[in-house]
Amino acid sequence: MIVVTSNKVSEERVAEIVKYIEKHGVQAHISQGVDRTVIGIIGKFDPTLAEHLRQMSGVEQVLKISKSYKLASRDFHPDNTIIKIKDVEIGGDQLVIMGGPCAVESPEQIDEIARLVKKAGGQVLRGGAFKPRTGPYSFQGIGVEGLAMMAEAGKKHGLLTITEVMTPEYVDVCAEYADILQVGTRNMQNFDLLRKLGTIQTPVLLKRGFSATYDEFLNAAEYILAGGNPNVMLCERGIRTFETYTRNTLDLAAIPVLQGLSHLPVISDPSHGTGRRELVESMCKASVAAGANGLIVEMHTDPDNSMTGDGVQSLFPDQFAGLLADLEKLAPLCGKRFDTPKEVIEPGSWKK
Amino acid sequence: MIVVTSNKVSEERVAEIVKYIEKHGVQAHISQGVDRTVIGIIGKFDPTLAEHLRQMSGVEQVLKISKSYKLASRDFHPDNTIIKIKDVEIGGDQLVIMGGPCAVESPEQIDEIARLVKKAGGQVLRGGAFKPRTGPYSFQGIGVEGLAMMAEAGKKHGLLTITEVMTPEYVDVCAEYADILQVGTRNMQNFDLLRKLGTIQTPVLLKRGFSATYDEFLNAAEYILAGGNPNVMLCERGIRTFETYTRNTLDLAAIPVLQGLSHLPVISDPSHGTGRRELVESMCKASVAAGANGLIVEMHTDPDNSMTGDGVQSLFPDQFAGLLADLEKLAPLCGKRFDTPKEVIEPGSWKK
Amino acid sequence: MIVVTSNKVSEERVAEIVKYIEKHGVQAHISQGVDRTVIGIIGKFDPTLAEHLRQMSGVEQVLKISKSYKLASRDFHPDNTIIKIKDVEIGGDQLVIMGGPCAVESPEQIDEIARLVKKAGGQVLRGGAFKPRTGPYSFQGIGVEGLAMMAEAGKKHGLLTITEVMTPEYVDVCAEYADILQVGTRNMQNFDLLRKLGTIQTPVLLKRGFSATYDEFLNAAEYILAGGNPNVMLCERGIRTFETYTRNTLDLAAIPVLQGLSHLPVISDPSHGTGRRELVESMCKASVAAGANGLIVEMHTDPDNSMTGDGVQSLFPDQFAGLLADLEKLAPLCGKRFDTPKEVIEPGSWKK
Amino acid sequence: MIVVTSNKVSEERVAEIVKYIEKHGVQAHISQGVDRTVIGIIGKFDPTLAEHLRQMSGVEQVLKISKSYKLASRDFHPDNTIIKIKDVEIGGDQLVIMGGPCAVESPEQIDEIARLVKKAGGQVLRGGAFKPRTGPYSFQGIGVEGLAMMAEAGKKHGLLTITEVMTPEYVDVCAEYADILQVGTRNMQNFDLLRKLGTIQTPVLLKRGFSATYDEFLNAAEYILAGGNPNVMLCERGIRTFETYTRNTLDLAAIPVLQGLSHLPVISDPSHGTGRRELVESMCKASVAAGANGLIVEMHTDPDNSMTGDGVQSLFPDQFAGLLADLEKLAPLCGKRFDTPKEVIEPGSWKK
Repeated sequence: MIVVTSNKVSEERVAEIVKYIEKHGVQAHISQGVDRTVIGIIGKFDPTLAEHLRQMSGVEQVLKISKSYKLASRDFHPDNTIIKIKDVEIGGDQLVIMGGPCAVESPEQIDEIARLVKKAGGQVLRGGAFKPRTGPYSFQGIGVEGLAMMAEAGKKHGLLTITEVMTPEYVDVCAEYADILQVGTRNMQNFDLLRKLGTIQTPVLLKRGFSATYDEFLNAAEYILAGGNPNVMLCERGIRTFETYTRNTLDLAAIPVLQGLSHLPVISDPSHGTGRRELVESMCKASVAAGANGLIVEMHTDPDNSMTGDGVQSLFPDQFAGLLADLEKLAPLCGKRFDTPKEVIEPGSWKK
Repeated sequence: MIVVTSNKVSEERVAEIVKYIEKHGVQAHISQGVDRTVIGIIGKFDPTLAEHLRQMSGVEQVLKISKSYKLASRDFHPDNTIIKIKDVEIGGDQLVIMGGPCAVESPEQIDEIARLVKKAGGQVLRGGAFKPRTGPYSFQGIGVEGLAMMAEAGKKHGLLTITEVMTPEYVDVCAEYADILQVGTRNMQNFDLLRKLGTIQTPVLLKRGFSATYDEFLNAAEYILAGGNPNVMLCERGIRTFETYTRNTLDLAAIPVLQGLSHLPVISDPSHGTGRRELVESMCKASVAAGANGLIVEMHTDPDNSMTGDGVQSLFPDQFAGLLADLEKLAPLCGKRFDTPKEVIEPGSWKK
Repeated sequence: MIVVTSNKVSEERVAEIVKYIEKHGVQAHISQGVDRTVIGIIGKFDPTLAEHLRQMSGVEQVLKISKSYKLASRDFHPDNTIIKIKDVEIGGDQLVIMGGPCAVESPEQIDEIARLVKKAGGQVLRGGAFKPRTGPYSFQGIGVEGLAMMAEAGKKHGLLTITEVMTPEYVDVCAEYADILQVGTRNMQNFDLLRKLGTIQTPVLLKRGFSATYDEFLNAAEYILAGGNPNVMLCERGIRTFETYTRNTLDLAAIPVLQGLSHLPVISDPSHGTGRRELVESMCKASVAAGANGLIVEMHTDPDNSMTGDGVQSLFPDQFAGLLADLEKLAPLCGKRFDTPKEVIEPGSWKK
Repeated sequence: MIVVTSNKVSEERVAEIVKYIEKHGVQAHISQGVDRTVIGIIGKFDPTLAEHLRQMSGVEQVLKISKSYKLASRDFHPDNTIIKIKDVEIGGDQLVIMGGPCAVESPEQIDEIARLVKKAGGQVLRGGAFKPRTGPYSFQGIGVEGLAMMAEAGKKHGLLTITEVMTPEYVDVCAEYADILQVGTRNMQNFDLLRKLGTIQTPVLLKRGFSATYDEFLNAAEYILAGGNPNVMLCERGIRTFETYTRNTLDLAAIPVLQGLSHLPVISDPSHGTGRRELVESMCKASVAAGANGLIVEMHTDPDNSMTGDGVQSLFPDQFAGLLADLEKLAPLCGKRFDTPKEVIEPGSWKK
């Protein structure tokens, strides 16, 4: 940690600041500059001390040198975290594809989509039972019964399942039904939810907030890790920028950045990252080329009539299968394998 | 609602889209353009229909003409909402000042600060018992006992109180102690929390999310209003932009914009909006000049040692009193009155 | 300047970095941390050395402590710059209002508007002869003859004039006709234009780029100052953010920030900052309350038919006069005087 | 084009607006909604009419349905533009790699780098003779003599050359020496420069502005096309967002978006897009996977001592060659070929 004083602060004030620092059991090294004094603090980063120093008069800047998160950092855990769920390993050399509808709508719908995800070669079935919606008058998901429908479909077709949990009180019931719990972008800093997820062992896919920095994102993961749940994967899903043509701006550099700063697996979500079906396939390929450990992709048998309106970013089943076939070839060039059995899906060969 | 087709879509497809629209009991008006067809839909805005249309093939854009929120809109409620709590009216011609520390730290601290807020002429005591923090190792607030301390101090000094609630399960206890409940920026789209706040009548100060559009902000308010609680005030507290010198970019145009779109009171938070003490006073004045119904301002008796590190954006008590004296003169030029009794606070005249 | 090494870099590499630094005639102070070494560099900031260090292996961060601009900094020039043009002083205690159309359209139009600006109490006539437009098919301004029309109108009505210059080759002709030259937001980093403006003495109003940080903005001013022209004023005109309801997000904190970092006058442009007529008046008042040295405001006699389409953000003459009357009262509360003679303008009392 | 009236505007006003529209020789179709009237305008988009309508009282929104750019649009030119320069085709099925230093520093430097670019399999040599720099005290490029050095090196090693031009008056001399002229991000809306580039036939690589929307970017290209130069390629080089860990946020979705909206080739610049060497390779692969027609990549023989400080984002020659070898395998999976002769470059096998 480094403290930079204001321009032309008195020697007395510098001495007081140093004294304050040393009271906290850490050493202060002074470098006297032309206009400002720089005080290096030796010892572990102490966020509270940093905050106090930042607000002292005579202090212009407090610069963090070490990171505020620990368990999420690769400095503390050099090897990749590999999350093993049944026969799927996330974070290693396997490419993992999570596919399915935005929302679970009926037993028939989720069963048919599960069949198609499996046929195409995916390993995880996605689907929301609780939906976060901008306005109160939009469809909010079918709730707990949707969880059961999805669990049933996953089991029948040999797929893991992932679903979103929105509030601490639903964590236990969601964990009972699903293999992976998703924290949505609007809840990345819902700290009570994160704390609750730290108390279980179910793997969590944590989505990056609309406008979260990498540092904030990793600190959010730290909440779950610090609670005792090591099974966290990070999900880049696009950030909010001035560009409105796409729903969000998919920040693919986040993939290698997060893999460098952290040991946690990184999943990419091109469906929300672009909001446009015609961009999903190229952004899936780009994500894999960038080193993603997996993808979460919306696929729907009848996107024109999806209940959430996210059909516009959902692939048709034949597109989904075509994409996965392409990824099988691409993966080995990017240090991954994606060797699940895959079958072609013909257009129109599914039940709407 | 307007539907714009893709370039050169077939007449058959247009007919299908129109048929789909009419099945929903609304009328479609067709305008045939050179390359595209425009379909105007007459009738109330139906978000579900809009979502479905947006995802149909042959549809390029669906443009919302009317707004997706109703109860929050000035179209539906032309007069200003005035929230009356004891003798304070928020949203009318009175300027309301909420002052206090970032966090309640001890009974002595909050009592002394309450005394100073009252002396300076403020009407509401702010203070957090539950603190949302980026990282899990930072001070998280002192919890429920802080609520009691603040309620006690408010009562003793004749001030209303406002405090942040972070999770649905704490809404009831917070409402027991505080006059106004605050929803923080990270929770603007914590929909379960909003729904819970809709079930009570305690006034709510809803802070704008880091990167929330006006439309999303008003939709979040709509959740509370739709639940049955009409006592909502909106708070502009700075948005996230590329500029990092200030903690956030305070968007003061939000004040007249929100007052135009909605009937709800608008409060400004220059402390979080800038993150720098030396900018708070000018931004408070600018907020009042822009038409704000009130301000929420951090003030601390010992900002160098505040427990959250937000001291850097807290005014000293003498600065706070000086500001309020200036605002008393400024308010009448901006259509407000701010005629509470006010006394000068001398530097160093308070207990740390 | 501070150099922070990467995690666990070898002592040898640190020694090499230090040697490299000392070769440049500056001293290096080493603080050995737990994982990283911090090297403080004593001496003037050298941007080239910083750039070289930043790219050396073993270096994680190079932190600038002193600023990269000098002549624009208040550290080097503690007193406010006051630019005196005829009887107008910009940067002192006088509030300066620049009003007029987006574009000069005809001799009659600019003469009538000049009359109204003077009558309302403004000191400077604005108007563009060269217009930067997003697309090539939009009206591009009437060119050099517009300069002459505006100079004539300014002279007749006793107003200074300001106009935009877009390219180095037009600097001389614009300077011949106008009292102040404006650099538009798109040209803030048109360095050849800035260099050319550094070679003359005509005052320059430099608009902040769409997405320029304060540091970049002041560095752009530094180009003009370093060339030998000390007469620079800074103009906050809104930045680009995710919010699209307003044309830009007017960053009013920029006013006190820039006045703190620099000695140059700061002007606010609420017309471009909001893009909406109904927001201009409140944002003008807020700008003055925030401490602006002046305002540049669009006013038009026939905004429905303005040639650039910026009529939507132009005040009508009666609104403009009403605003200036309000500002006369507001200014003294904000440390300014605005005591020019002012007359009421009745709606419809002007020639379209 | 669609005009939406304000809430509850009178029938008389609607009639006036319609009359105004019809005076311009286009037809107006009226759809009467519950609160608002929607007027569809049939006929070519007229930006001036749109601007006038937008500023009329009673008008809430004017929505553009067709695009404001024409020559740049795929609607008007369905086939890909292929720019043929000697034996290189940009925009077709060939992947084109432009490599080289940020700045030309000496004849020996640029000659050695040209040798390495060719050896690795690149087709174009990049290098700046004129450098746009944030501050006036940074290295500004070596000027015209750098152009000659680069032309010489390109000729000797059989590479095309690309260099940045910053001001209209240097267009001719740059075009004399270089095969492709680059417009930098700060100059994307330097309209005089764009107009001048429209008068020649030399291919232009137009970089996206820091915060330019796709629409503004394509309108900037339209300036060059409208002037008569059809040889324009678009370059995504990262946009400015709230995230500061990377120099910019590389928006890879821009690649398929721009290729959909336009027929012009799209080049990606991961060096400026990330600002960090360790991210360049993965972002180059991701760009190709996203469908880029080419890459522009910084490579330097001695990045620790590059004169601009951009060494931190420059690849070493061996990394560059390794990347190109990988791209040769990747390209065919993405519909491209990259079959230039390639040789391995051993670490340390070059002259610094």
